[in-house]
Amino acid sequence: MTTDLLLEGRHFRRDWSSPYDIGRKAAAQNLADIAAMGAVPTALVVGLGLPGDLPTAWLDGLTDGFGDECATVGAGVAGGDIVRSERVVLGVTALGDLGGRPPVTRAGARPGQVLAVAGRIGHAAAGLALYEAGRAGEWPALAEAHRRPSPPYSCGPAAAALGATAMLDVSDGLLQDVGHIAAASGVRVEIDPALLPVDDALADAAAELGEDPLRWVLTGGEDHALAAVFPSEVAPPGEWRVVGRVTEGEGVQVRGREETYGGWDHFRG
Amino acid sequence: MTTDLLLEGRHFRRDWSSPYDIGRKAAAQNLADIAAMGAVPTALVVGLGLPGDLPTAWLDGLTDGFGDECATVGAGVAGGDIVRSERVVLGVTALGDLGGRPPVTRAGARPGQVLAVAGRIGHAAAGLALYEAGRAGEWPALAEAHRRPSPPYSCGPAAAALGATAMLDVSDGLLQDVGHIAAASGVRVEIDPALLPVDDALADAAAELGEDPLRWVLTGGEDHALAAVFPSEVAPPGEWRVVGRVTEGEGVQVRGREETYGGWDHFRG
Repeated sequence: MTTDLLLEGRHFRRDWSSPYDIGRKAAAQNLADIAAMGAVPTALVVGLGLPGDLPTAWLDGLTDGFGDECATVGAGVAGGDIVRSERVVLGVTALGDLGGRPPVTRAGARPGQVLAVAGRIGHAAAGLALYEAGRAGEWPALAEAHRRPSPPYSCGPAAAALGATAMLDVSDGLLQDVGHIAAASGVRVEIDPALLPVDDALADAAAELGEDPLRWVLTGGEDHALAAVFPSEVAPPGEWRVVGRVTEGEGVQVRGREETYGGWDHFRG
Repeated sequence: MTTDLLLEGRHFRRDWSSPYDIGRKAAAQNLADIAAMGAVPTALVVGLGLPGDLPTAWLDGLTDGFGDECATVGAGVAGGDIVRSERVVLGVTALGDLGGRPPVTRAGARPGQVLAVAGRIGHAAAGLALYEAGRAGEWPALAEAHRRPSPPYSCGPAAAALGATAMLDVSDGLLQDVGHIAAASGVRVEIDPALLPVDDALADAAAELGEDPLRWVLTGGEDHALAAVFPSEVAPPGEWRVVGRVTEGEGVQVRGREETYGGWDHFRG
């Protein structure tokens, strides 16, 4: 079970995103949270605060977005509540089925295990940078990654079944979120930047904007990729890419750089 | 599973209610919804939108209120989300355990069955009227009923176990809510006003304010009493009071008055 509160003007803008994309994104971030515990998402309920003058078509678009994102995992919108509000407010709660397994938390990582990621990372941050630079049209896939995340839902329960010891979805940036695993598990996590996925579009867009693509990958949020720690004897399945290892200590370190997690709050590229 | 979105200024006021009472009330209305389906409430999650300048003590009071109301049913606050917001926003979702039974909906009432209520009805409306008249101090129990409902949680699963065919919690007024049962079940419900509970405090306060206490009982919301329909061969247990019966037809009628449900929207006392 997981819940998020999303406010117009803070988490989304009606002039930047379509209601359909807002619905898909709001559903995705909750469904990804369920998958990251190793569960299969089953149902969503939505509390809606809506302005009295909101066009019906806007609400239809939002509803379609929620429904379509849920449909990608075989879940559905089970109900909700509607109240009048000056600005749009979304209170989203998702439920999942653990299939009898205990939930995978952030606290089970142990030295000697490996860190792996599944799904796109840094693409949403790249898309946002492209929107801000007025160049979103040149990299439509990155722009879409910002408007609509595509979490690798099925990788969550699959990782749990293989014995993943810690997992979460990357919503605030890989460094910060893996830092949560390090803190909760009482371990240190070393990330090897050479193993991080940087595809051509990300590299090209970064070069054009004078950015370091690794900054997007390490600190960009909102992709809702999954990051999980596996025992060393487990070979993570195809969708997973090993990007680091767990050691004794604390914090997150990126190999070849001196800073640990705290320093990366002020990452300068 | 049930969810409600509560907005400052629309559902509560920080200058009228303490944070503790706001927390208890927000929890109560969701837990009552769970009980009204015949389930035992198990957990609550809360999405909190909070102004940056909100005093920490206010949040502590709110949290205590949520926790104490949950404790009355053996449930707990399992988690949540906090975001910054101009005004306080509460997105509350509750879960319950049906104990293997199907949920009791609004749609199972059949002619020949009886309507019963459990818990206080009309007290919250009386309390609000007393606050508005500046006389809340004279009837402290009614005033408290407005600030803090006291739903008869355990009566919900007990009614379900006895075979209740329809049930809900009275949040918008007995007439309107029983009207939902009549509509969903395709039946008519006759309420006998002589059977409705009007205690001395309610009668006294109504006399002083020149009000009809039955108006509070029939149309007052927010008490979160439970209303349930039982098969005629079931004797509802002690906490339940039979107040009417189910017949063929549609709508809700109060014996001795001509109007059916629609007319009661404009109840004049």
